[in-house]
Amino acid sequence: MREFLFPNSIAVVGASPNPHTVGGQILRQLSQFRGRVYPVNPKYFYRTVSELPEPPELLVVATPAPTVPRIIEEGGKMGVKAAVVISGGFTEVGRGDLEEELLDTAKRYGVRILGPNCLGVYNAYIGLDTMFIPLEKARRPPPGPIAFLSQSGAMMTAALDWAAGVNIGVGIAASFGNRIDVTEIDLMEFLAELDEVKSLALYLEGFRRRGEAARFLKVAKTFPKPIVVYKAGRGADSQRAVYSHTAAMAGSYQMYQGLFRQAGVAEAGEIKELFHMAKALAVYRPRKMKKVLVVSTSGGMAVQIVDFLNEVGLEVPELPREGQEELRQVLHPAAAVSNPIDLTGGGTDVHLAAALEVGLRYTDAAVVAPLIHPPGYSERAGDYILSAFEKWGKPIVVVAWGLFKKLEERLVVVETPREAAGVLSAIASYGSKIYHGGGYRGD
Amino acid sequence: MREFLFPNSIAVVGASPNPHTVGGQILRQLSQFRGRVYPVNPKYFYRTVSELPEPPELLVVATPAPTVPRIIEEGGKMGVKAAVVISGGFTEVGRGDLEEELLDTAKRYGVRILGPNCLGVYNAYIGLDTMFIPLEKARRPPPGPIAFLSQSGAMMTAALDWAAGVNIGVGIAASFGNRIDVTEIDLMEFLAELDEVKSLALYLEGFRRRGEAARFLKVAKTFPKPIVVYKAGRGADSQRAVYSHTAAMAGSYQMYQGLFRQAGVAEAGEIKELFHMAKALAVYRPRKMKKVLVVSTSGGMAVQIVDFLNEVGLEVPELPREGQEELRQVLHPAAAVSNPIDLTGGGTDVHLAAALEVGLRYTDAAVVAPLIHPPGYSERAGDYILSAFEKWGKPIVVVAWGLFKKLEERLVVVETPREAAGVLSAIASYGSKIYHGGGYRGD
Repeated sequence: MREFLFPNSIAVVGASPNPHTVGGQILRQLSQFRGRVYPVNPKYFYRTVSELPEPPELLVVATPAPTVPRIIEEGGKMGVKAAVVISGGFTEVGRGDLEEELLDTAKRYGVRILGPNCLGVYNAYIGLDTMFIPLEKARRPPPGPIAFLSQSGAMMTAALDWAAGVNIGVGIAASFGNRIDVTEIDLMEFLAELDEVKSLALYLEGFRRRGEAARFLKVAKTFPKPIVVYKAGRGADSQRAVYSHTAAMAGSYQMYQGLFRQAGVAEAGEIKELFHMAKALAVYRPRKMKKVLVVSTSGGMAVQIVDFLNEVGLEVPELPREGQEELRQVLHPAAAVSNPIDLTGGGTDVHLAAALEVGLRYTDAAVVAPLIHPPGYSERAGDYILSAFEKWGKPIVVVAWGLFKKLEERLVVVETPREAAGVLSAIASYGSKIYHGGGYRGD
Repeated sequence: MREFLFPNSIAVVGASPNPHTVGGQILRQLSQFRGRVYPVNPKYFYRTVSELPEPPELLVVATPAPTVPRIIEEGGKMGVKAAVVISGGFTEVGRGDLEEELLDTAKRYGVRILGPNCLGVYNAYIGLDTMFIPLEKARRPPPGPIAFLSQSGAMMTAALDWAAGVNIGVGIAASFGNRIDVTEIDLMEFLAELDEVKSLALYLEGFRRRGEAARFLKVAKTFPKPIVVYKAGRGADSQRAVYSHTAAMAGSYQMYQGLFRQAGVAEAGEIKELFHMAKALAVYRPRKMKKVLVVSTSGGMAVQIVDFLNEVGLEVPELPREGQEELRQVLHPAAAVSNPIDLTGGGTDVHLAAALEVGLRYTDAAVVAPLIHPPGYSERAGDYILSAFEKWGKPIVVVAWGLFKKLEERLVVVETPREAAGVLSAIASYGSKIYHGGGYRGD
């Protein structure tokens, strides 16, 4: 699997000087690649794979479906071991015969196939990017500790674009499309050993072959890093869609839920939550956790956060009397000091710092919602939050709408109380796993 | 109640030339007001309310709590009928005695009180804005068909700021704080008759007095426009917070849910959903609805949308054979044509237009998710969506991340499949109400 994510050389079959073609766009993206790139096209560059001066470690194929088996054969004969097939036009359009031919050829010549009908691979560490959507249309996130495996290519691109916008760092990503050979499970085995990756986010529509569920269970159970999965295709109407989309069997959602529970992986309710949870698990690390501090400048926001925390089984306990009294002497007279702490519109950034300092003494994590800057807030508010995080080393999740963008570099910043609760619940559920077996054993 | 939302003259007690004070900021906001504004402060301007040249229709009070009863008395003697008390420092800090004194005084002199401990009122149509958070810190939304009543002041400001960012038009807003006199229910009676308002969004923590629930039920049942409510304070920890926040009794969440069902109002799961639903009900109008068309450039996104639509009881039926065949001749060969329609990355904006044209023939509404512009999309994609909306007059909800901002002016644009489903579910649930009694009877 190393060749798929860390190749030293790549051949792009179907390359073109025209960036408005798929092959041309891939070539353009690979200008960032820290290795050798060979464009292959009968009309330009190298005319065939066999003309290349060396067997490329990775073959990227973006030519019409009927031509793909022959290209794989040619590569296999040269010694190519890994091929990403971007091309569509197989089972998803009723051409199961072409897909079988592709798989047979690949097996005969010892070439592993990612795809077909996929957007391929992304490795921010080495500038590997086979997504044919240009940067103007889909941003790429900064390099970071998350690996993202997505059955759907468009979902991969859209989610990475969104992650870039909210500063969530993703190091590795891959899309599997029709998944005829290489699956999430194969790449998981490789990612298990990759130090740069601290957590794994998985977008899954369904397994396609017998035995995959069992293999997923085995690999996930011993995976040494936290995994978060978002399973799409839950109801009757969507299972029809899943089949037409990636030819996967969605299966009953209950079956998948049972599988995830058994494997001890966290489940996200939405695609954005998938990334927030994965980032939280990478940044804060899983830990045992029960008591949460809630600090807001808005009593209403505090109430909503408490609601969602309670819903996922976390507590927002009253602070002990001495803590409350300490806060009462510092905070605004109208502030609520028991937890949730409502700094009120009369609160200042120094009040925020005090609330975190006292509150974190008695709790395992905090949700801070400095929704609107009250008059007494300066730019230092963000620094105070970071200082508290550094001092206590406890997870601090920030709920903010547009403000506090710079905190995204260090902390998990979400938009809604529901997301904040989801994030902490992932940390807590992985935290309890440390003590109850499973692959993940903490740091 | 007219004086609270459409006053011709306002006195600001506690006004100041310094915009960094509460009274100073309110004065600054009122520079947009299309009526007469009288600043009152012993050190500047008019020294007392009794010095004013006329009884102001609305008194806005932002002075320390102990001074408020005397100011209300002074106003009442002059003939003032309505006062917004911004000042905090009453029950929420243990000074129930001051609150009683305020209420007694107000009753004696026939002055209705909004507040205390609130952010007051907002009326975009006439430039009325008593929120003391400056525009640099919280934007105001464009004037629009939604009225927003919020028990929490900070929530009002934060939510309006967010609504402004996503172009959701709000005409009227009010916050109630400790709600000692004027409540949501009083303003609802006024808003029922106000033509500019097409739907009502309600942020509620809890009723405070006996009989309020019954009165709410009565008013909501006969309210001639759709109502969406978000109820915060659902669990044990948050009910403690609610009491400290607005001195309201949160009561059991089940009780409130029963009340909302009986009143036939739609319930939102989150504060943002509250606005999306209210906008949808204002823009699309409630209607009977069951079958939804889903169109995306991403099969994965389509699957997720179908999941959430199924979850709220809406169907995504296969299109009839003739519709599918028509689409197969137009769309990309790899496109899925049965519904959900997956245009694939090879789809163009013309394909999108065709999918809407054919699909809406057989369905009641559509969710369109043009997540990432594929190479074949131009700026016209948005125009095609608007044309389809104009032609069919059926609700079209757009799921987009950052793109298609300009559609926000005409359509509901959300970020997640969950939000899209919530929006359509509100329309459908109000739509069925048209035929099953209740105040709302359609247009």
